[in-house]
Amino acid sequence: MKKYILGTSEVTQIGILVRDIETSARLYADFLGVPVPPVRTTDPQEKSKARYRGKPGRGRARLAFFKVGPNVEIELIQPDAEPSTWREDLDRRGEGVHHIAFQVKGMKEKIAALEAEGMPLLQNGEYTGGRYAYIDSSRDLKVTIELLEND
Amino acid sequence: MKKYILGTSEVTQIGILVRDIETSARLYADFLGVPVPPVRTTDPQEKSKARYRGKPGRGRARLAFFKVGPNVEIELIQPDAEPSTWREDLDRRGEGVHHIAFQVKGMKEKIAALEAEGMPLLQNGEYTGGRYAYIDSSRDLKVTIELLEND
Repeated sequence: MKKYILGTSEVTQIGILVRDIETSARLYADFLGVPVPPVRTTDPQEKSKARYRGKPGRGRARLAFFKVGPNVEIELIQPDAEPSTWREDLDRRGEGVHHIAFQVKGMKEKIAALEAEGMPLLQNGEYTGGRYAYIDSSRDLKVTIELLEND
Repeated sequence: MKKYILGTSEVTQIGILVRDIETSARLYADFLGVPVPPVRTTDPQEKSKARYRGKPGRGRARLAFFKVGPNVEIELIQPDAEPSTWREDLDRRGEGVHHIAFQVKGMKEKIAALEAEGMPLLQNGEYTGGRYAYIDSSRDLKVTIELLEND
């Protein structure tokens, strides 16, 4: 594998799929000793421009975030019924860890570099202030990685 | 759930099950831009005093560690064939994330507090300079947690 392909070695997020985000957010809040965070919903495809396996990605998710270190967060993810990497993994493997994330600069170049190494793009899109991409890195890294780029 | 039950909210380790630790360690080293770390083996049961599901835990694992943040590491884990939480999860779910870990003080009290909340002890043992416990927290947290206590 090309060395230091992302230009970072810092994991900044652990994404966990759940079926009932209100219940899970409450349990995590108690467990971590923090207030229950707001649950927010990813943007509709018209805004997010999401693509999933080469097609417009209509799947959305409800999200809740918890700080679990100086620069690490847990993201709880409850997908809707439409196709997405979240829905696919929840159906296939059940609740549990979906991804680990890295902050990158130069999203397009990073995606291209990963694809050249046999790690294809699974899903990508935009959010207010940045963009994300999920990569099928399971063959080499045994976990899905997410790239996050904030402007 | 009892609030702030561990007395910490900081995730310090992400444990990932692999079938071939030499190959995975090399790929992670390239990906993260670091030298390939040494692979070490957990102690035999006579030394680790490991217990797994209420019996002496003879399962061992080969481990490799990568720093992925100021206070976070990825632990690659290749279990042997004997029964352990590592072997059980690898057989049931395949390669992928096994646990997230927290540093605690007062291991016995923390295990008892978690058990009182319906999160039973799965496996525990000692290593040079400390002790560990894996907890079946999947019902509430959707992931196995590990407690680590260093002296």
